[in-house]
Amino acid sequence: MNEAREIGVAILGLGTVGTSVLKVLSARGEELAERYGVRFNVRWGLVRDLDKERDPAVPRDMLTTSMDDILGDPEVKMVVEVMGGVDPTFDLVLRSLATKRPVVTANKHLLAVKGPELEFAALENGVALRYDASVGGIIPVFSTLGGGIHAFQVTRIRGILNGTSNYILSSMYNNDLDYEEALMEAQEKGYAEPDPTMDVSGMDIAHKLCVLSRLVFGRFLPLEEVDVEGIGPGMAMAVPGAKHRGMKIKLVGTLSMEGSKAGQLPRAMVRPEEVGQEDPVYRFDGTSNCIVFDTMDTGEILICGRGAGGPETATAIVTDLLSIAKGID
Amino acid sequence: MNEAREIGVAILGLGTVGTSVLKVLSARGEELAERYGVRFNVRWGLVRDLDKERDPAVPRDMLTTSMDDILGDPEVKMVVEVMGGVDPTFDLVLRSLATKRPVVTANKHLLAVKGPELEFAALENGVALRYDASVGGIIPVFSTLGGGIHAFQVTRIRGILNGTSNYILSSMYNNDLDYEEALMEAQEKGYAEPDPTMDVSGMDIAHKLCVLSRLVFGRFLPLEEVDVEGIGPGMAMAVPGAKHRGMKIKLVGTLSMEGSKAGQLPRAMVRPEEVGQEDPVYRFDGTSNCIVFDTMDTGEILICGRGAGGPETATAIVTDLLSIAKGID
Repeated sequence: MNEAREIGVAILGLGTVGTSVLKVLSARGEELAERYGVRFNVRWGLVRDLDKERDPAVPRDMLTTSMDDILGDPEVKMVVEVMGGVDPTFDLVLRSLATKRPVVTANKHLLAVKGPELEFAALENGVALRYDASVGGIIPVFSTLGGGIHAFQVTRIRGILNGTSNYILSSMYNNDLDYEEALMEAQEKGYAEPDPTMDVSGMDIAHKLCVLSRLVFGRFLPLEEVDVEGIGPGMAMAVPGAKHRGMKIKLVGTLSMEGSKAGQLPRAMVRPEEVGQEDPVYRFDGTSNCIVFDTMDTGEILICGRGAGGPETATAIVTDLLSIAKGID
Repeated sequence: MNEAREIGVAILGLGTVGTSVLKVLSARGEELAERYGVRFNVRWGLVRDLDKERDPAVPRDMLTTSMDDILGDPEVKMVVEVMGGVDPTFDLVLRSLATKRPVVTANKHLLAVKGPELEFAALENGVALRYDASVGGIIPVFSTLGGGIHAFQVTRIRGILNGTSNYILSSMYNNDLDYEEALMEAQEKGYAEPDPTMDVSGMDIAHKLCVLSRLVFGRFLPLEEVDVEGIGPGMAMAVPGAKHRGMKIKLVGTLSMEGSKAGQLPRAMVRPEEVGQEDPVYRFDGTSNCIVFDTMDTGEILICGRGAGGPETATAIVTDLLSIAKGID
């Protein structure tokens, strides 16, 4: 085997996920070099605050607050965006693409509102834009499939796509907590953000459905097409009521092509559903995620695993980096 | 989009799976042409007996008993092998590769005993050999991943990989049948062959483990390395005994890299295991299959779906044909 090819990378955002990407690339450097002939060299980390206390794994001299440092460095060949949000992220990703850097992003929110524009920019500049990591957790297991999942003629996707809300509902069910108690416990354990709105409102799931629509049905679903209902204190009545009837409440996201013609957009909704034991999502408690694909000739396919934590998302990002690296060999 | 490119195909073997491939290619012809720009035209079906009664979907004039007809037809650009067995199949596949035809095979038995030789022949002739369909059912969902699953650093694969034996064990458990009754019922429903040896002896699972070893860990495992124990009449005691303790018996296949070094072969075994409710394979009854991947940083990933029937295997074969067609564009 030849010497591993070195590829300079910039990471936009060094929070949990960005730091995790840095660690994965460092811990697995030798293995990736040997197996794929590629060595990713992280040259820059874009941050808002240079002086913030950080994980010791982050070298101080890689930090910058200026996108110009990154775009001005000809050795930066790929950009990883894990800073989140839409503004100024959208602009930074566009600038990366415009300077012919392929971008790997884990930002489902950005994709749900700006996906088509970003794909157009990538196409126009002839560089890759990959976002398997944006739908997080287990989903990269199949989204890297390319043609694979299409051959299965998926008619519906339904599942538990948010670990935080699932954790809260599971604690309410299993430990007879009310909503606030369960939320507080999730926050203490680091499964919920201090502001949990995105997760409990269903918006995080709605973002994922928009991206899944692109990955499986070929087109981004506009966010406003998703019918969204989240969970809140009202669940304090619903969960024990359902339990009494042998059921659970799960916050379920659904994308359905049933009754749609090819090329049409799927119908999408997020809502708390009462599910019985016969429902494949019933038994997936805690922060686990699970997706059920209904297919035309091949029945139900179920994929389950951990939700998107740092290592899961970082692994998906590395997969995306590798697939781009193979393409630009 | 340009006119769809026509690709001549020969199918070796027109049993359940071969006929199903023919039907899928015909039913989805327009869609594949539109979506992938490819039209697969089945020119020959190799059979043992021209006069056997067949599904009306099989055109009489495509049948031949002679491999020479197929290899002598310059329009045959790809070969699908679904005849099963090792002899004379091995020879026919080698001849297809030697005449520069890529081969898609669903024959796990052939791969388990001749995989390395076949891959060498494919490499030597510069043509593709694809066998995602050989591990059947849900497995093509991830095996087409390419680099994907590797990024997940799988340490162990464990699961229910044979629908027939799982159906028998499930009926014994759920309907309090003894082994022979459950086997007979499975045969009546078409879930078990008249000679069920391959399925109940664990050999079918052993074949799949050899191929999975190649797909996930990079090397075919020699069949004799698999420690195999199947199910039989003795289960009539074990199943109710386990049930009494809140457990089930499942015929489980395991490939494990635990304690192995990179590049070493995984340890492999097939055996009836007593599993409790906390075991992810516990709830998958009937003919369903399920695989659990243990991964280094990303926990457990579970993939479940129907076992390999005609449509499932045919869909996987079409996926393989498409991925080759993309490559030889």
